[in-house]
Amino acid sequence: MAHRIAVIAGDGIGTEVMPEGIRALEATAKRFNIDLEFTTFEFGSCDYYLEHGKMLPDDWFEQLKGFDALFYGAVGWPEKVPDHISLWGSLLQFRRQFDQYINLRPCKLMPGIKSPLAGRAPGDIDFYVVRENTEGEYSSIGGKMFEGTEREIVIQETVMSRTGVDRVLKYAFDLAQTRPRKKLTSATKSNGISITMPYWDERVAEMAKQYPEIAVDKFHIDILTANFVLHPDWFDVVVGSNLFGDILSDLGPACTGTIGIAPSANINPEGKFPSLFEPVHGSAPDIAGKGIANPIGQIWSGAMMLEHLGHKEAADAMVEAIEAVLGEGDSQVLTRDVGGQGTTVSLGNAIAERI
Amino acid sequence: MAHRIAVIAGDGIGTEVMPEGIRALEATAKRFNIDLEFTTFEFGSCDYYLEHGKMLPDDWFEQLKGFDALFYGAVGWPEKVPDHISLWGSLLQFRRQFDQYINLRPCKLMPGIKSPLAGRAPGDIDFYVVRENTEGEYSSIGGKMFEGTEREIVIQETVMSRTGVDRVLKYAFDLAQTRPRKKLTSATKSNGISITMPYWDERVAEMAKQYPEIAVDKFHIDILTANFVLHPDWFDVVVGSNLFGDILSDLGPACTGTIGIAPSANINPEGKFPSLFEPVHGSAPDIAGKGIANPIGQIWSGAMMLEHLGHKEAADAMVEAIEAVLGEGDSQVLTRDVGGQGTTVSLGNAIAERI
Ligand SMILES: CC(C)[C@H](C(=O)O)[C@@H](O)C(=O)O
Ligand SMILES: CC(C)[C@H](C(=O)O)[C@@H](O)C(=O)O
Repeated sequence: MAHRIAVIAGDGIGTEVMPEGIRALEATAKRFNIDLEFTTFEFGSCDYYLEHGKMLPDDWFEQLKGFDALFYGAVGWPEKVPDHISLWGSLLQFRRQFDQYINLRPCKLMPGIKSPLAGRAPGDIDFYVVRENTEGEYSSIGGKMFEGTEREIVIQETVMSRTGVDRVLKYAFDLAQTRPRKKLTSATKSNGISITMPYWDERVAEMAKQYPEIAVDKFHIDILTANFVLHPDWFDVVVGSNLFGDILSDLGPACTGTIGIAPSANINPEGKFPSLFEPVHGSAPDIAGKGIANPIGQIWSGAMMLEHLGHKEAADAMVEAIEAVLGEGDSQVLTRDVGGQGTTVSLGNAIAERI
Repeated sequence: MAHRIAVIAGDGIGTEVMPEGIRALEATAKRFNIDLEFTTFEFGSCDYYLEHGKMLPDDWFEQLKGFDALFYGAVGWPEKVPDHISLWGSLLQFRRQFDQYINLRPCKLMPGIKSPLAGRAPGDIDFYVVRENTEGEYSSIGGKMFEGTEREIVIQETVMSRTGVDRVLKYAFDLAQTRPRKKLTSATKSNGISITMPYWDERVAEMAKQYPEIAVDKFHIDILTANFVLHPDWFDVVVGSNLFGDILSDLGPACTGTIGIAPSANINPEGKFPSLFEPVHGSAPDIAGKGIANPIGQIWSGAMMLEHLGHKEAADAMVEAIEAVLGEGDSQVLTRDVGGQGTTVSLGNAIAERI
């Protein structure tokens, strides 16, 4: 049976890297005999907003809910639409309405990619950040009082539910279970944030009882960010709240030099709703239209999508192809950001061929 | 007139590095003809807690409020007293009751110190993190509902007041004003945390109007942590809320390799209450009692204290002495953490002599 994929290229370089993502997926599908069916949507972009006054049509949920996955490019173009409108009107809608409560990002040193950290080589850093993706610090509850006066105050609530915390922890522990090192690190700040964070710690301790084989540790978020830089080799699976996960899943790829090419998955593990796969990078209006954007983030996201759909071997082949092409370092093929003079298409082609 | 300094060595290596901090300060006082008067207190340590059942005596506020500054070592010894008791019972009391609403930390590449970042040399990185130190995410307001059931939720409020936000911004802008580059970066997350963070942005924009000479930019905290690693040379003065400032002021010194030797100041700028100066490092029970702890964090904190007391030239001389001794790289003098075989005392002595 075919896997039905909804394709939303979005804005800027999203529209340029998406065809390369699809090209790589089609090459993989052919090699591994997987049936993929792509359906393209125009909504979820700032141009759509300019025409329709909204980021998504009213029936987007109905239109998309039957798909097996959403393959997203990049959204946002601040000169056309303010970010809080374009992002809350699209990406954050998908995450919430499709209950994609896991945000997953690999942090991995890749051959040929310059890491900003001294003395680290491919193989040294290879971990996942698992982020809670629906609650926590990203509540919209709160407000302002004494507005416009010297006494003005604003309040915003952080909300954690047992359901919300336990399910992300379970996912992270299960993931750690599949990894050779079987290690899980929890991000906390229970020494300063005295109500929600001790609760998070409590739930981690509780869940850990069910996974005696997993080595569990925790760090306060301040020293944890420091340790990402000082000891990135310590980590295997790192789990954090919505905000802490957000921070760590940018910092991690920054430490491996892959922030421009890293992928990200927004997952509804039960498969009740489609999950969403997107590169970490944004729409990059400054280089849009030039054909020089690096398509690896999109292709690597495609690999995460295949893995989610049950094709781990095929996904691994895609990542290996990316690593092989990066490792060869052919400057005619590679895009500028990774030291070459090639184009989005030349790099996309090389990876598809390698697959 | 003498500056009256209250000395609290605290726990673990705090008691070992404190004498070196005082030695360096006395050498500086002599050279620059400054009158310093030290008074030592036993409270604010875990041993005090074990004896008295509390970290501080009931009249600590009365005892300390008349001093010109508090010079703190390090507090905490989890095997004796849980961290949330020792820290909330001492350090966080001082910050709140003495309204030390500024937490200030320099992030500076020092000669002879190995930075984890590739290709950076002394001079390349030199910025300050200014953290709000009394409100924001560190409220104690909130609670738990449906306790012990599947429906359990916890809520904690972030509280920002105009007074609280404006005064830390003003301090940061004033600091930027004194620096050659005159640049201020604000840490935000207004694209995700939709009530308090847009308010923070609003106040930054408002305050910026009064400082037309200052170049102001802002980054969301996720990409800002990435940029600390990728582009630490971009920053001059970085200002953030209590939580964001906490994160950035560990990450910054980690990027410069100085997390073991960086200083920190908790300041009440109006001088209504004493300000507190302490190394960033903790009490390090694992190496306590061995005489090998690096005293530079304590000495550098002493320099920040002198600057706060109005002796900028003397403070600069202390920092220069630290840089000179580090730059010489004499392995008989330097402690192990910086590649030598010396002791707390040999390094402290060398710096005092240099002054
Ligand atoms: C110990 C802890 C409560 C404290 C804080 O978060 O403020 C520490 O991390 C610091 O930065 O001084
Ligand atoms: C755009 C923003 C709201 C979003 C987030 O914080 O979730 C982004 O940083 C991400 O990580 O996908």
